[in-house]
Amino acid sequence: MPQTETARNETPLAAPADPRGAPGARLSPVPLGAATLTGGPLAEARERNRTITLETIHRRCEECGAIDNLRRAGGLLAGDPVADFQGAFYADSDVHKWLEAACWQLAETPEDDALRARVDEVVAVLEAAQGEDGYLNSYFMGERAARRWTNLRDEHEMYCGGHLVQAAVAHFRATGERRLLAVAERFAAHVWSVFGPGRRPGADGHPGYETALVELARATGDPRYAEQALWFVEQHGATPPAIGGRAYHLDHEPLAAQREVVGHAVRALYLYTGATDLLTELPESAASLDPAVDALWRDFTDRKRYVTGGGGARHDGEAFGAAWELDDERAYAESCASVAHFQWAWRMLLRSGVGAGGGAGELRDAMEQVLHNGLLSGVGLDGEHFFYVNPLADNGGHRRSPWFGTACCPPNLARLVAALPAYAYAVDSVDPATLWVLLLAEGRVRAEVAGGTLELAVTTAYPWEGGVRVEVVRAPEGECGIALPAPGWADAPVEWAVDGVGVAGEAVDGFTVLRRRWRAGEVVSGVYPLAVRPVVAHPWVRAAHGRTALARGPLVFCLEQADHPGVDVRDIAVAGGAGAEGWEAEWRPELLGGTVVLRGEGLARPAPAPDAPLYRSAGAREVGERERVAWERVALTAVPYRLWANREAGPMQVWLPEV
Amino acid sequence: MPQTETARNETPLAAPADPRGAPGARLSPVPLGAATLTGGPLAEARERNRTITLETIHRRCEECGAIDNLRRAGGLLAGDPVADFQGAFYADSDVHKWLEAACWQLAETPEDDALRARVDEVVAVLEAAQGEDGYLNSYFMGERAARRWTNLRDEHEMYCGGHLVQAAVAHFRATGERRLLAVAERFAAHVWSVFGPGRRPGADGHPGYETALVELARATGDPRYAEQALWFVEQHGATPPAIGGRAYHLDHEPLAAQREVVGHAVRALYLYTGATDLLTELPESAASLDPAVDALWRDFTDRKRYVTGGGGARHDGEAFGAAWELDDERAYAESCASVAHFQWAWRMLLRSGVGAGGGAGELRDAMEQVLHNGLLSGVGLDGEHFFYVNPLADNGGHRRSPWFGTACCPPNLARLVAALPAYAYAVDSVDPATLWVLLLAEGRVRAEVAGGTLELAVTTAYPWEGGVRVEVVRAPEGECGIALPAPGWADAPVEWAVDGVGVAGEAVDGFTVLRRRWRAGEVVSGVYPLAVRPVVAHPWVRAAHGRTALARGPLVFCLEQADHPGVDVRDIAVAGGAGAEGWEAEWRPELLGGTVVLRGEGLARPAPAPDAPLYRSAGAREVGERERVAWERVALTAVPYRLWANREAGPMQVWLPEV
Repeated sequence: MPQTETARNETPLAAPADPRGAPGARLSPVPLGAATLTGGPLAEARERNRTITLETIHRRCEECGAIDNLRRAGGLLAGDPVADFQGAFYADSDVHKWLEAACWQLAETPEDDALRARVDEVVAVLEAAQGEDGYLNSYFMGERAARRWTNLRDEHEMYCGGHLVQAAVAHFRATGERRLLAVAERFAAHVWSVFGPGRRPGADGHPGYETALVELARATGDPRYAEQALWFVEQHGATPPAIGGRAYHLDHEPLAAQREVVGHAVRALYLYTGATDLLTELPESAASLDPAVDALWRDFTDRKRYVTGGGGARHDGEAFGAAWELDDERAYAESCASVAHFQWAWRMLLRSGVGAGGGAGELRDAMEQVLHNGLLSGVGLDGEHFFYVNPLADNGGHRRSPWFGTACCPPNLARLVAALPAYAYAVDSVDPATLWVLLLAEGRVRAEVAGGTLELAVTTAYPWEGGVRVEVVRAPEGECGIALPAPGWADAPVEWAVDGVGVAGEAVDGFTVLRRRWRAGEVVSGVYPLAVRPVVAHPWVRAAHGRTALARGPLVFCLEQADHPGVDVRDIAVAGGAGAEGWEAEWRPELLGGTVVLRGEGLARPAPAPDAPLYRSAGAREVGERERVAWERVALTAVPYRLWANREAGPMQVWLPEV
Repeated sequence: MPQTETARNETPLAAPADPRGAPGARLSPVPLGAATLTGGPLAEARERNRTITLETIHRRCEECGAIDNLRRAGGLLAGDPVADFQGAFYADSDVHKWLEAACWQLAETPEDDALRARVDEVVAVLEAAQGEDGYLNSYFMGERAARRWTNLRDEHEMYCGGHLVQAAVAHFRATGERRLLAVAERFAAHVWSVFGPGRRPGADGHPGYETALVELARATGDPRYAEQALWFVEQHGATPPAIGGRAYHLDHEPLAAQREVVGHAVRALYLYTGATDLLTELPESAASLDPAVDALWRDFTDRKRYVTGGGGARHDGEAFGAAWELDDERAYAESCASVAHFQWAWRMLLRSGVGAGGGAGELRDAMEQVLHNGLLSGVGLDGEHFFYVNPLADNGGHRRSPWFGTACCPPNLARLVAALPAYAYAVDSVDPATLWVLLLAEGRVRAEVAGGTLELAVTTAYPWEGGVRVEVVRAPEGECGIALPAPGWADAPVEWAVDGVGVAGEAVDGFTVLRRRWRAGEVVSGVYPLAVRPVVAHPWVRAAHGRTALARGPLVFCLEQADHPGVDVRDIAVAGGAGAEGWEAEWRPELLGGTVVLRGEGLARPAPAPDAPLYRSAGAREVGERERVAWERVALTAVPYRLWANREAGPMQVWLPEV
């Protein structure tokens, strides 16, 4: 990777966030290239992303005209930008997100000439599409230019701009080239010529630009971009309101005063992510946001998050529901909200670090929970069908789509998956001799820690199996720490050994830190306890009343119709506690690309008659015995939620009814 | 009431539908004036409607400018109809519905000069607002006139027109005056000059006009209006689509081919109601609709109706959900859908009559179920606050509103309540000597049956108490029948007696018919078995899993926070079967205007800690015993669902969790 001077750091860091040197930052990611994933479901997801999804999304962006819109805006294609515009007014953002994803991939596979050529072409299109004044949005061209920046609430110009900037940062960090970064800087300068103190007020109706500006500051070394981001965040809830004052847009009160997670789920989670970035980058001037971000995380985590990590209970307004309102079959849980949740948790973890009372273990667990469940569920095993909505129960009608009129989710998933290795490890500014393992997966990591380079090779079949083997490939002379996750779901600490000899690690806030003078060739080994866990919900979650979910390690499981011929999944119940003591995990190499399933025994009621009444009066005793029906024992197979809807359609449920 | 000639019937019938003489009709209502309600909750609701709600709605229509819009359109008020228009583009319909409601009230209280003066004024406004060509809609005036009839899908012109026609029919039937009927005829002629075979295609994006046209045909004796209604109904699902082809507008396939209840709940139920009218009025030419209407009723009743009679599970699109998708806390169950449900069931009952295999008992039960639960819940006990949405569980945030931006529900409820007595009894064209009692309530009825006049005085505290006393005030010479409901919820037939001597009635399809030569002064008496009934749902209704609802007679009950100090209603559970054997009904004259409550014993868990986790792993045994918590016995008081949210806000639930 070419080295380029930036103000704070000598080399760009190939990761979605680069908090190195930020006054409020504790951890920094190990970048793409230095961190790799070589086996297991995360690596497989990433390989599918590289070989299929990136290609598919680029093709869709061509078919739907999103790239042509930009080509016309830049005069590279004949036609009228207004009359010939295709797709939604925010179609540019799909191109930007694809570009970001492609860049993260290129960071690891710079030899991929075809991908590089495609990236170069799109970068050139964006350069051409940018106006003299720095404006760049292919929708607001021609006669629509008069509408630029007139409706921040609804017209997504800052949202599109945010993804442009994020793509530019990724391009710079992946390739070292500053071409697109220059476009982003011109764009940001243009925005700041329109908005700002003494100029026009205006908050972002669909957040995303705030986080982008913080990374632009980090990539360029120009702190003013972060200050602009703070100004935009503080415009939310201004008096008079700049964007209408509705909770939907997070504009009902100043963010610093907000304590409840409300409104459009993706917009909210992006805004909280931006606020977290600001607390990292500008901890003093952004300090008033601190209690808000903490309280919002608690409200989300304790009252409004699905067991799959999804967020957003309502189709209506794509919004969060009330506290404990988490209906399963009508869960919205947009894939983009899962992406945002993952990014928010990661940024909070980078900010607070471990051992500072910031809930590092909970944050890491959240990343793992949403990634392995409600985030990767967004992409089918074929890599080219996508969920926008991720319900926790279905009657067989909900299937992945090849594309959407509003196609935000596929490229959003792609950019996250492409950058996955960069989320897996972190180094520590306070405890500079320690390497933190955030995501467990087979792969390698090479990090600069105090004293030198620490390089590890991780061998594991996690999360299918609990065994983890970490070989020290290279180590500094002095003592350093390897911090391994101690997940909250584990009912016993992992017993770690070095070369077979048990070692007592230091338990710190959701991690176990093994500190010593490491020598190359030493092997750390341990086994995570992957017992089948029945999971119950807070009693006020109505959709989970009298139900249990099955989990094993970080994975949440579901029953799918495809595994239960002869009985409708909706007629299946389990004994109290899901009969969890009887469940066994089984590796099924031929199923769903290779997966662990849970096998156990349940009960099936006789299928209801087609004309079974919707309601009936029941004698008290009859109901007390939960319907005098002849339950029959039935063998059950539960598959990971992430893998559902990859076979023939049929009912699915996560929360299993108990009898 | 003045007598006016119509083609088929000598006198107008003061009821929302007048199927007398229609070739497909069996029953006809006993009109307002001849049928009265004098005591009990229906009479109280009607009295509140007369003294408060009608006044309130008229005032809101003035305050919101809906009547002024029409005054300006008619040149009765200075100003520009376009620039000065206030409210939603369908604001006219609120005025029309208020007028219909006021007319039904006037039919019974013609001496109410203040109400009559108000009716006369609004009628004069409508006369003035009508264009030379018959067009009448105060929104599409001035420069907007060019948009008339250009967007039937979205712009509600036919919906507003339908309510205009229904108001005109009510005005004619209530007062005998033809002024507004003439307006309606001119309007319908205008519509038919635009649309029709060989003219423009077009279906009604928000149905309502079809039912109105059928009543216009009946009121005027001109059958062409019914034929127009059939043409409009048959335009749904045309190729190419006239209104876009979406299920939301019931335009995805011809209605005759539809078998599943989908789309916007109110629009769907209005369309089905219109189709039912057509099967009554034009049974031969509308015959293809017959299987559709039957199948749609079955789908609604067996898979998509709330236990409160509400319809429409989704906020998103105000739509029906999938089969068995009936979430409680996010139930939409719009008050207008309850009105439409009631009207549809009534019209199906009038059409099929009793004993013809048309499910008369089920239809009557449906009317009673929705009326006493999810319909009258729409109006507060103060008569001036309204529910648009009627959920079955709430955390305390859902309260009735004084008005709405889209104010369809309040005047819709008002017109139904004003006409209530007309829904209570029916005479029979096939069994002309029998009077059918459809709604049990204290009151009087005077009906012409074969052989003469049958007049009854009903004394009852139903549904608070089961006892019913029917005194024969006048009877014809020959044998005639008094048909009393035999509700499906009753677990034993009522033992009827005449002057204390048991009589064996004829059980016919949800009714018991007592036939004899009646003499004035004879008293029929019986007692409906109002035991507390636990109600369970079809096992595929996820929101009702492990839960029981409490019912008594036609009433569904709920737990409200106001009756349970010291314990959060969300922490209350009941023993299996809701412990129904232990529940007792108690009359509470001081509570909620006087109501029966159910008193029983439940269990309360200790309040969850404020930081209780949303999910937790639980040992199998622990879950099997449904959480090892110290449940405490707690006295429970359940109130009728209809009366909820009339006290201080707090959690409410209909489906009670069992432990």
